[in-house]
Amino acid sequence: MPIDKNSLPKPVYLDKIRIPGGLWEQRQTINRSRTIPVIYEQLQKTGRLDAWRLDPDRERPKRRSVIYMFWDSDTGKWLEAVGYSLHTHPDPALEKQVDDLIDLMASAQQPDGYLNTYFANLEPENQWANLRDWHEMYNAGHLTEGAVAYYRATGKRAILDVLARFADQIAALFGPNEGQKRGYPGHPELEMALVTLYRATGDKKYLNLSKYFIDERGQDPHYFDIEASERGEDPDDFWAQTYKYCQAHKPVREQTEATGHAVRACYLYAGIADVALETQDQELVDVSRRLWDDLTSHQMYITGGLGPAHSNEGFTFAYDLPNETAYAETCAAISLAFWAHRMFHIDPHSRYIDVMERALYNNVLSGVSYEGEHFFYANPLTSYPNVNPHEHFSGITSDRHYRRSEWFFCPCCPPNLARIVASIGGYFYSTTADRLYVHLYNQSSADFEFGGQAVQLEQQTNYPWDGRIQFTVKTDTPAQFELALRIPGWCRRYTLEVNGQPQSITPQNGYAVIARQWQDSDRVTLVLDMPVERMSSHPDIRQDAGQIALQRGPVVYCLEEVDNGARLANVAILRDGQLHVEFDADLFGGISVITGEAVRIEPASWPGGMYQPQSVVEHTQSPFQFKAIPYYLWANRDPGEMRTWIRRI
Amino acid sequence: MPIDKNSLPKPVYLDKIRIPGGLWEQRQTINRSRTIPVIYEQLQKTGRLDAWRLDPDRERPKRRSVIYMFWDSDTGKWLEAVGYSLHTHPDPALEKQVDDLIDLMASAQQPDGYLNTYFANLEPENQWANLRDWHEMYNAGHLTEGAVAYYRATGKRAILDVLARFADQIAALFGPNEGQKRGYPGHPELEMALVTLYRATGDKKYLNLSKYFIDERGQDPHYFDIEASERGEDPDDFWAQTYKYCQAHKPVREQTEATGHAVRACYLYAGIADVALETQDQELVDVSRRLWDDLTSHQMYITGGLGPAHSNEGFTFAYDLPNETAYAETCAAISLAFWAHRMFHIDPHSRYIDVMERALYNNVLSGVSYEGEHFFYANPLTSYPNVNPHEHFSGITSDRHYRRSEWFFCPCCPPNLARIVASIGGYFYSTTADRLYVHLYNQSSADFEFGGQAVQLEQQTNYPWDGRIQFTVKTDTPAQFELALRIPGWCRRYTLEVNGQPQSITPQNGYAVIARQWQDSDRVTLVLDMPVERMSSHPDIRQDAGQIALQRGPVVYCLEEVDNGARLANVAILRDGQLHVEFDADLFGGISVITGEAVRIEPASWPGGMYQPQSVVEHTQSPFQFKAIPYYLWANRDPGEMRTWIRRI
Repeated sequence: MPIDKNSLPKPVYLDKIRIPGGLWEQRQTINRSRTIPVIYEQLQKTGRLDAWRLDPDRERPKRRSVIYMFWDSDTGKWLEAVGYSLHTHPDPALEKQVDDLIDLMASAQQPDGYLNTYFANLEPENQWANLRDWHEMYNAGHLTEGAVAYYRATGKRAILDVLARFADQIAALFGPNEGQKRGYPGHPELEMALVTLYRATGDKKYLNLSKYFIDERGQDPHYFDIEASERGEDPDDFWAQTYKYCQAHKPVREQTEATGHAVRACYLYAGIADVALETQDQELVDVSRRLWDDLTSHQMYITGGLGPAHSNEGFTFAYDLPNETAYAETCAAISLAFWAHRMFHIDPHSRYIDVMERALYNNVLSGVSYEGEHFFYANPLTSYPNVNPHEHFSGITSDRHYRRSEWFFCPCCPPNLARIVASIGGYFYSTTADRLYVHLYNQSSADFEFGGQAVQLEQQTNYPWDGRIQFTVKTDTPAQFELALRIPGWCRRYTLEVNGQPQSITPQNGYAVIARQWQDSDRVTLVLDMPVERMSSHPDIRQDAGQIALQRGPVVYCLEEVDNGARLANVAILRDGQLHVEFDADLFGGISVITGEAVRIEPASWPGGMYQPQSVVEHTQSPFQFKAIPYYLWANRDPGEMRTWIRRI
Repeated sequence: MPIDKNSLPKPVYLDKIRIPGGLWEQRQTINRSRTIPVIYEQLQKTGRLDAWRLDPDRERPKRRSVIYMFWDSDTGKWLEAVGYSLHTHPDPALEKQVDDLIDLMASAQQPDGYLNTYFANLEPENQWANLRDWHEMYNAGHLTEGAVAYYRATGKRAILDVLARFADQIAALFGPNEGQKRGYPGHPELEMALVTLYRATGDKKYLNLSKYFIDERGQDPHYFDIEASERGEDPDDFWAQTYKYCQAHKPVREQTEATGHAVRACYLYAGIADVALETQDQELVDVSRRLWDDLTSHQMYITGGLGPAHSNEGFTFAYDLPNETAYAETCAAISLAFWAHRMFHIDPHSRYIDVMERALYNNVLSGVSYEGEHFFYANPLTSYPNVNPHEHFSGITSDRHYRRSEWFFCPCCPPNLARIVASIGGYFYSTTADRLYVHLYNQSSADFEFGGQAVQLEQQTNYPWDGRIQFTVKTDTPAQFELALRIPGWCRRYTLEVNGQPQSITPQNGYAVIARQWQDSDRVTLVLDMPVERMSSHPDIRQDAGQIALQRGPVVYCLEEVDNGARLANVAILRDGQLHVEFDADLFGGISVITGEAVRIEPASWPGGMYQPQSVVEHTQSPFQFKAIPYYLWANRDPGEMRTWIRRI
């Protein structure tokens, strides 16, 4: 079945969705009032904003670091977050702040269109000399996405024009033609951004460039070899040792496994999906499905985390999912959500949204503290005092616990979080000419059009704490369309009523489709059965053997020391013990908490030494009531141990 | 009780011990016939021997690396191994080979005594510029120990004189006096070696220098800061971030915890013990005991391995003992044996020898393959395909398994193994004027003198595969002395007979002491009860929770895939299941193998995906008979998974 862009569902942009309550309203309010402002402060404090004021006498940083080379991406992501936020919540003061910054950014653009604060200030002679490592294209991508978001929110073209000129320069320099370099981004991102720019401007040149980047990647002779030789380096000296690191080890169409740096990987795959859609390229859809299946069936944490290893910030091998040292970068889970969302739009099936939901409610939200001003880069599934998933050697916070930080030397995650939270409404719905897909459930209302007829859909729900979602259709005149409600993969029983009449509907590709001429005030009630599940992992995941994780709805739970005492490795949850769910309105603005029967298995007494024969040390089981909270909320109270996978007895 | 050197036991040098059979004979034969020759080949092939032929036009290595700076230590350790081996097994051809090398080494000595192939060949201007990192003193130490061993074996002074001249230069350059630099080794080793040199030459200057190094270490102003500033570097830029790395974070007498690089740590502590003894310094004995207690009660694997972390090749924090990523460097276990042996001689108690024995039979022997030509640097307690305890990112052997290597870029471990195996006899016995301590049990005979009376002691045993050891005293005339037999810490029941008469003796400091006038052919039979023990670890070791390790006598066992199939994480040993021990004469020259009842706990079928609710996936328990082999012999047959800590059910 060849891909047909016109019949495929399209996402409904966030400007059509209002989120007046529920978990995402809570997160968006905190994002707007706390996260976006603190990121701006950090951009300012660290010199990232001032860097746009080009100065040939600027002092070089004490040590040259690639990190400085991607400063601009942080500004770009912040701009994008602000764009989304202004769209749903206008804020003239903030808009003024951004306009001033944009003036400054525009002033940094070179006559030829080039835009990069690091190279323009410090190493103009090294422009484009190292696409593999030096992130100019990555910055260009993030700035472009920021520019488009701001343009869509405000209608102001200034920064969009700046980035379009930069993209024009890139399109002139790189490509298959005589006199062009056959380069492509070492860190993918621009692929997606160019499609975004194409959609915003209608200029197909940008789409073509994105497609070129995807098809040139990993071709022989290898561009990263060529440019290394031109720098006088031995290509074999690549610090990351393998082009798998940047998914350039073979041509994209031949790739079958998710490899290397996890964020690079999913940004690339998201770009592939974009190009597949816009160029209606069935082969790229097949490539995407293959990579998707590999990643989500072999290399994903139960939290939607990706990339277990610190060393490459990425993938290792199938079923290798260490919990305590899980890198599971916040950006990687975000990039998975980006890719999942795009996969649905080239292959409409709920399985992609299931993964997106898993990532969002767990590894993505854990990236930011409840109060919105501290961030995780790595998101381990188990935590002990003194253990730092970033690196053993580099130590740990002063109280010896792994906690969220105010900022990072490489601060890619905070503004990435800000932009996905600010744009979350855009992930709720998709439409075709006659169907409305509902992907995510949250208190909200949204506007659509079917056959020229304006329709509003309201959701009343306390999801994810409760599985009941009530939809109300508002329409001036009856409207014919299909309402396609996602039945989440985690849900094994549900009921569906239309105006109080039970419906028996077999889901199609994971969606319960109600075809109907909708009247004003029609009500649909979906009740997703949401018991606590004891989850087992695939028997090849050695790190989870003998353990279970608690999941309810899309939310994975964890045990923290503050609720359960220390030595959580010695805690076992009873196989058939009672489990209770309670909504605690006072905890983190209202969450569901799980309690249940557990035992602590420990020696009655320990005679000393590190190792003792079992016959000397009898282990006793002391029963106690455990308490689990959502994984994403860990490390927001008293510091201590945390475990997601718990022994089962 | 202040330390009194004269009343303390002294080790019996290896020239008094013959090892005609048993495990150590097997290892020594392989060491002599395979290991020592292959190390020589590698020294030659890698240019380490040729480097002694100084050449001002020598080409610099492509990349400057600290590794090149400690090439000489590899030669030194090889020389030391050869010295020990020649002592017990004269070999004129080998001796000729060494003498030729020694001529070459002597030719590389500078007029001022300086000796270092790297700096003499490549960076003469940088001599002594970085004691913290550049290993000149470390090399000097290993060369000195090699020189003394060779001198003791052959009586030839040439290389001893060379190293004494070098030590004279060091003693002139470094010290507390006007015009001297207040430096000390960044990588300890010379401290021990100077005491060895003092004992060989009687020149107290070397002992004083060793004591100076120990007392100057970590003093303020900090020498490593001073020399960094003199190199024009910021001392805070130390790549290892903390002087804990090299145990120079505070003065030695104030140290209470084993920190940093594990080999550096134990070499230093061994040097402290040496100086404590020779200077009869009670405070240093107390420091040693404190560090010993910290290390062995909080930071030691059941295999005697030390230093869980790759990043610092060393310690992390109390009870942090990851199994799969255990670095547990071969050299670290060897250094622990060195230190333990010295601890006994300043504080005579079997607890030190218990740890030495644990290290020797497990983490030390695992460092070399059964055939003697391949080596482990890191010694994990669990191994899975694709997992490399050295570093995730650097990949793994071509068949995706962690296996012993022929050599390493940093090959400290192979010659360290060669020297400890070649000198193992020297760890068997200690004597005071009237007592003979027996520490290690192995087929052997040895010569002693008590009150001017020559005495021979023979051991007949198949230890560690069997707990029966028969001693025969040979003496021309009756001899009065105490025979002190170590009752190992792992042993909970034993019988002791003298000439067939059961003895009831309460051990003193871990030794059963038989005071007697010994007649020729007196027989002592010690039978150590040696059941298989299911070992539990301290409840704070989270990585071992819910698991047991099998230990019999001093030998820790492991399960390998070749005997037990894959997915060893899903295997559980029955808490009260039968365990059997069988001596398999055909396996690895004869070893005891453990079999017993286990179950494999796995889902009856897996419906796909990575995570499934327990209610969907029923786990079944399939019984099977497991087979365990000594840990130190793993990775000598078909590659596959390995586990030391096994789930208990």
